[in-house]
Amino acid sequence: MLTPSGHAPLRRRARLRALAASIVIPLVACAAGAHAAAADLDAIRTQVVAQHDVSVKRLQEWIALPSIAAEDLNVQQGAEHMAKLAREAGFQKVEIVQTDGKPGVFATLDAGAPTTVGLYFMYDVKQYDASEWVAPPLEARIVDRPGVGKVMIGRGATNQKGPQSALLAALHAIRDAKQAMPVNLVLVAEGEEEIGSPNIGQLALRPDVQAALKNTVGVFMPMALQDADGEVVVNLGAKGIVELELVADGTAWGRGPAKDVHSSLKAMVDSPAWRLVKALDTLVSDDGNTITVDGYPAAPPISAEHRAMVAAAMAKRNEARARQQLGVPRWIDDLPWQQANERLVSQPTINIEGLVGGYTGPGGKTVLPHRAVAKIDMRLVPPMTRDGAVAALKAHLAKRGYGDIAVNVSGGYNPTSTDASSRLVQAQLAVLKRNGLEPLLWPRLAGSYPGFVFTEPPLGLPSAHFGLGHGGGAHAPDEYFVIESSKPAVRGYDGAVMSYVEYLYELGSGSGR
Amino acid sequence: MLTPSGHAPLRRRARLRALAASIVIPLVACAAGAHAAAADLDAIRTQVVAQHDVSVKRLQEWIALPSIAAEDLNVQQGAEHMAKLAREAGFQKVEIVQTDGKPGVFATLDAGAPTTVGLYFMYDVKQYDASEWVAPPLEARIVDRPGVGKVMIGRGATNQKGPQSALLAALHAIRDAKQAMPVNLVLVAEGEEEIGSPNIGQLALRPDVQAALKNTVGVFMPMALQDADGEVVVNLGAKGIVELELVADGTAWGRGPAKDVHSSLKAMVDSPAWRLVKALDTLVSDDGNTITVDGYPAAPPISAEHRAMVAAAMAKRNEARARQQLGVPRWIDDLPWQQANERLVSQPTINIEGLVGGYTGPGGKTVLPHRAVAKIDMRLVPPMTRDGAVAALKAHLAKRGYGDIAVNVSGGYNPTSTDASSRLVQAQLAVLKRNGLEPLLWPRLAGSYPGFVFTEPPLGLPSAHFGLGHGGGAHAPDEYFVIESSKPAVRGYDGAVMSYVEYLYELGSGSGR
Repeated sequence: MLTPSGHAPLRRRARLRALAASIVIPLVACAAGAHAAAADLDAIRTQVVAQHDVSVKRLQEWIALPSIAAEDLNVQQGAEHMAKLAREAGFQKVEIVQTDGKPGVFATLDAGAPTTVGLYFMYDVKQYDASEWVAPPLEARIVDRPGVGKVMIGRGATNQKGPQSALLAALHAIRDAKQAMPVNLVLVAEGEEEIGSPNIGQLALRPDVQAALKNTVGVFMPMALQDADGEVVVNLGAKGIVELELVADGTAWGRGPAKDVHSSLKAMVDSPAWRLVKALDTLVSDDGNTITVDGYPAAPPISAEHRAMVAAAMAKRNEARARQQLGVPRWIDDLPWQQANERLVSQPTINIEGLVGGYTGPGGKTVLPHRAVAKIDMRLVPPMTRDGAVAALKAHLAKRGYGDIAVNVSGGYNPTSTDASSRLVQAQLAVLKRNGLEPLLWPRLAGSYPGFVFTEPPLGLPSAHFGLGHGGGAHAPDEYFVIESSKPAVRGYDGAVMSYVEYLYELGSGSGR
Repeated sequence: MLTPSGHAPLRRRARLRALAASIVIPLVACAAGAHAAAADLDAIRTQVVAQHDVSVKRLQEWIALPSIAAEDLNVQQGAEHMAKLAREAGFQKVEIVQTDGKPGVFATLDAGAPTTVGLYFMYDVKQYDASEWVAPPLEARIVDRPGVGKVMIGRGATNQKGPQSALLAALHAIRDAKQAMPVNLVLVAEGEEEIGSPNIGQLALRPDVQAALKNTVGVFMPMALQDADGEVVVNLGAKGIVELELVADGTAWGRGPAKDVHSSLKAMVDSPAWRLVKALDTLVSDDGNTITVDGYPAAPPISAEHRAMVAAAMAKRNEARARQQLGVPRWIDDLPWQQANERLVSQPTINIEGLVGGYTGPGGKTVLPHRAVAKIDMRLVPPMTRDGAVAALKAHLAKRGYGDIAVNVSGGYNPTSTDASSRLVQAQLAVLKRNGLEPLLWPRLAGSYPGFVFTEPPLGLPSAHFGLGHGGGAHAPDEYFVIESSKPAVRGYDGAVMSYVEYLYELGSGSGR
């Protein structure tokens, strides 16, 4: 599917022409605010193209330094690199903030603008197994992908270094084009997003950080929102998540062995592995799809408004391609495409991420394991809460006689919702419309991010994702981000950068929240 | 528990005294057969002691070369080393026999004796994780173990290189003492015991090997039968076993993803991991202990004769120590010690050796795995058969709607029984009694070995285990074999060697099968 690029890079002039052709931004759209009025978007666009190679190299260097919280890998280095990137992009105050977990970064850019915008970044990435990749996951190699264009393959390419680096490149370009920065910025960047952000509150709610965020119109996270055809959905929130391990252990149980013993002893010794299977069995229906945890918080049925949003989006989405990309022959319960997506946005899940018990190597080993673990993630929809879901799970296990099974929560957070009328969302819609992209609203991102820290008290801010461009393979092998798109409707890297330029000017030209 | 030895080795003379004191073998006992009559056991004993250091070194060198069939490790080297050991011990014909799996070794020692005895060896060992050991598993370090003596720590120390090397040392000592070998020997050694001996028939039933075995009075495997107090049980058979993997896979199922996908998709995509849990759940009762596979072959209740054997053995076994060694606070169903052991010898099991699915590393990873595996071993008792058990499992899964779950059998064999009146068993009882050890009969070893190839047609031979000495930790970390015992009742290495000398002379002095 992916082949190393055999093409010479497009020359700069050709790229500029390509970019000019694919982005239509009437200058009048930038005339509302004082700062925006002063902007010469052509000059910025010229800078974006001029800086293309430097920006791509900056992204490649970032990908080469993976910070992985679950493996305690490059934690301090990742925070320092994030701080350096912020400083270079023009943030005047940049501080590494220690937490009980991995350090975060707090940075502010004061442009003297009337509007302040919050940014949420993550500098960590998901684990990877290099043997599963077509190109080394840290090399950030740019390859030709037929029908897509030139894509960068690398861990973090789209989740989230590609889009975040594009936003930073937008700040470089605005400054170097000597244009007024349209908004002030408050950045919080964490290094634990991929383990469920257990300490995000210690970063975002530290009194001075909280005070800075309180001044913003809301907080957004850079994200490549375009699908492979260029379609964009604007998410009005995200599911919450809990990540945890269920651990069956002979010592905790008071039955079975305290260490692995010879499997012949199964005839007289209890098995923690079977106990884990039996406890897991009680959590979901026989088809694995309906949560059967006693007293688990119920999810309301999807609203008519949300159903209409899904229907409008489905009319533009290609089911066959989605099936093919995921390798999924049929959806849950053989649901049609639209109902499957209604389920995606509206239903909570209990998923087994991993099973680990006893002997896990090649072939067999005749042991009776003393311990077995299920790695679980539970996705939450409003009004569910992280604490409520965990409490219900624990109560269920206790009630069913599995109180000895440890519920070790490693991270998670509540779901979020952001009003479509918020300035954060309205500015997105305006930019999209201006570019001829019909804005599709999407009720809720099925994935999760710690927006709760911004949307819930004490901050109570709108929180959203924005960015053009396209990527894929988040959490999977061959994660990619489009650098030069072969489809006019899909933006490449420079187009992604320009989408942040446009969005920041649009935010700077508005008023209210 | 285990500390490196700080003691200087006992001097040879002291060891000889210790050995003479612990083994009482009236010479008259060896007067029955022509070969046996000629034996000077004192001369042999002197050789055993003189060769102690060489014999121990031979064992250490063997442990340093682990052959692990499941990992395809040192397969050819292991067979060649086994052949070399046989040649050096006096086998005149030694051949490496290729099979569809790992090679075996076939060797014969013609002593011109009227009686021929079969030997079954395994040159492979179980996998190990060195990080779990107190001493490197291949170093075969000799350490002091309080209350036990000097023990050798190493993978294969007791299962099965220690006892097998002791038998080879017996052959060296008999020859070097210039005594007549009391029996002819036919050796079959395989390298796949730990994966369930999938090709043992290709070795033991090859026409010339089969013809050689047909001449034997039976086949025995060297084994350290003494427990930590020196008690010995004589096994009258062994359970059978099937090792297999149950694999739930999205592609085979026709549901779920063909590769790992982002876990948020659980809301619309089926989960092979949950499917595995649900299928496993149908195999055993809620406590994990009773097999609930539809139509699974039933095990008859324990016979009165076997119950009496267990009762007699339990009177001499220390329950508290067994619990402590295994780290098991209570037995299945809170059974008393004797009933737990009745269950051990009489009941089949389905055990989970390992669970492997999705992400198995540290922390979590939000994936929906496309595949999950349970590693299973099933122990069998007569009249169950390997093929019958597998067929019942497959039929059960199909009937319950889990026909897509693959049942990948990697090895296994039928249970065995050997009559207490056989010469192989009667000779054991005679040696034990002569040494003041009250022989305890045990209905069936709960572990498994491929004795079926000897006991079933076309060979139909008695098959058994024999050997004095003590070891522990088979298949577990810190596997050990006693080299110098601190308890008079428990034999050290030289005592184990002498037990084989005695057994071979006893077998040579008898008649019939």
